[in-house]
Amino acid sequence: MKLIESGILQKFTAKVFIHYGFNEIQAHDAASVLITADLRGIDSHGVARLAGYVRQIEQGKIKPDAVFTIEHETLSTATLNAGGGLGLLSAPHAMKIAVEKAKKCGSGFVAVNNSSHFGIAAAHSKIALEHEMIGIALTNASPLVAPAGSVQPMLGTNPICVGIPGRKTPFVLDMATTVVANGKLEIAERKGEKIPHGYVQKSNGSPSDNPSELKNGGTLLPLGGSMDHASYKGYGLGSLVDILSGVLSGANFGPWVPPFVGFLDTKQEMVGQGIGHFLGAIRIDAFRTKDDFYNSMDQWMKAMKAAKTDPQTEKVLIPGEPEDETHSKRVKQGIPLNEKVLEKLNELAAKTNQNSL
Amino acid sequence: MKLIESGILQKFTAKVFIHYGFNEIQAHDAASVLITADLRGIDSHGVARLAGYVRQIEQGKIKPDAVFTIEHETLSTATLNAGGGLGLLSAPHAMKIAVEKAKKCGSGFVAVNNSSHFGIAAAHSKIALEHEMIGIALTNASPLVAPAGSVQPMLGTNPICVGIPGRKTPFVLDMATTVVANGKLEIAERKGEKIPHGYVQKSNGSPSDNPSELKNGGTLLPLGGSMDHASYKGYGLGSLVDILSGVLSGANFGPWVPPFVGFLDTKQEMVGQGIGHFLGAIRIDAFRTKDDFYNSMDQWMKAMKAAKTDPQTEKVLIPGEPEDETHSKRVKQGIPLNEKVLEKLNELAAKTNQNSL
Repeated sequence: MKLIESGILQKFTAKVFIHYGFNEIQAHDAASVLITADLRGIDSHGVARLAGYVRQIEQGKIKPDAVFTIEHETLSTATLNAGGGLGLLSAPHAMKIAVEKAKKCGSGFVAVNNSSHFGIAAAHSKIALEHEMIGIALTNASPLVAPAGSVQPMLGTNPICVGIPGRKTPFVLDMATTVVANGKLEIAERKGEKIPHGYVQKSNGSPSDNPSELKNGGTLLPLGGSMDHASYKGYGLGSLVDILSGVLSGANFGPWVPPFVGFLDTKQEMVGQGIGHFLGAIRIDAFRTKDDFYNSMDQWMKAMKAAKTDPQTEKVLIPGEPEDETHSKRVKQGIPLNEKVLEKLNELAAKTNQNSL
Repeated sequence: MKLIESGILQKFTAKVFIHYGFNEIQAHDAASVLITADLRGIDSHGVARLAGYVRQIEQGKIKPDAVFTIEHETLSTATLNAGGGLGLLSAPHAMKIAVEKAKKCGSGFVAVNNSSHFGIAAAHSKIALEHEMIGIALTNASPLVAPAGSVQPMLGTNPICVGIPGRKTPFVLDMATTVVANGKLEIAERKGEKIPHGYVQKSNGSPSDNPSELKNGGTLLPLGGSMDHASYKGYGLGSLVDILSGVLSGANFGPWVPPFVGFLDTKQEMVGQGIGHFLGAIRIDAFRTKDDFYNSMDQWMKAMKAAKTDPQTEKVLIPGEPEDETHSKRVKQGIPLNEKVLEKLNELAAKTNQNSL
């Protein structure tokens, strides 16, 4: 484990993107999304994935010179073709369009096709939060999840992120629609630990405690975990994200989503272009005055935090609160990188003519 | 068990509302929402609840002569004050405003305050579906749910309903953000059956299989069921619904939501007006041509239905599919009413000068 100052990691990451053909602004913006994940403690979505993006750029699956084009538009909506470019850039671009539309008419929504992995959803919702708007960020993802009652990988972990402004701190829900995201399995795998039943199933549908099960044809289970604990709800939510991100935008959807993970092959058949996202911004003062809203939001947060806890729990948390705390800590202390991640980054350092971290 | 033709039940229900001061159109519309629930097989939200609405009207908690007023408006948004009226009427009214806004600018959202129980969410999303729009219907509800890690009832079962148009049949996700809705407990209670662990907890946080646990100070568990199976996600989703429906609209929220269930007292302190809803409509042709969208949607549904099942499952279902099948069956065969529900309805028949069912 090594602590690296976030500014140093940001510059390092940006230089990698510059090496692969992005201009300085693009490289800075893309790096910021990854560093945001690391600062928030979502290590699976940070610089640990930089090598994955580089692999896709080298394979020609992500185009550094992509041009973003609006294909369709109304006052409050747009469809953006990301030109085969980097999701780390197309998603914030789309959110900025959504914010501009919301300024004019209260709300704005942009569906994105022909894109690639967009990183941590909360980084995109944050753009709306900065404008005192509710920010919504959805994306479809590598098919690793079986619908409720199925054993076939048909959906991604398809996250739902909604950020809602608060007077001091925002409410930021950012969740995979599975019991756990793939990142948690990767962490257990690295540590050589077993996982609880109900996270993944074997390829025949029987229970598994093996964090590498997906590589044996197993699948992630939708939120709920089992049919009698309502995994059809997690499946429904994952489907909703897939339809808004993929079907509505004209991207690939369901089992056809081009995978980011290295152990899955891209399907020859395509039903749309690239992967898809759905970004939204809703002005709070399109419904109430900001002051009234913030007063109620303060009251809401205060009430939840004061709720009586069960014997295992110290305090009730507001969605986003643990990530905000990690952010404050890591801005000061630096970002901890484990040896495997550091090793991969130093391979990239050599490739991109940089000093080792 | 008795089968009643849906048209007869609709007229009966409408006459009850007329008896309590609603005009003919209002009574018809309110009755339709309840009958829609019964036809879709969501018996907990149908005429079984008619006596509950009547109780609240008699107590002056629901005003038959309420006037709906737009308090705030932008091109794509509005805030509706339901004047202390019936949610069965204010929610469809709000959805129609959302649809008109979406016609003009692509999407429309209406937050409702000062309202009451709105019945089955899918009935309201359906209005958007009829206009080939995505329909969103959210509401907060009686505080019966503890946040993850808590034992205190702070949130309602706060449903998320999103209807998405299809060429033949729509996708209709309509789910409580808890493992199970209160209605499932009521059914187990009537049958004298125990429930699986993970649905509710005792007032001290320990597991319970008692469907009457809520009456002993127990709480419903958020979707996920336990902390290590991500009940913080269900809590996050329920919170999101509460904030959009209550905080954004100016209604009550969290533990202050005036309860519909008879066994909870209304709090003296109020933090807003009545209960709150959030309705939305998004035009599919604000993103792609309808034809392109329906082609992809057909492909999406076909793929999911063909997914390989586990040994316990006959076929993978599309959200809304079981309810659509029940609807077709019950339109032909009638709506089955159990003895307890029939008894309560016949008490209402006597009160409202109607023949028994």
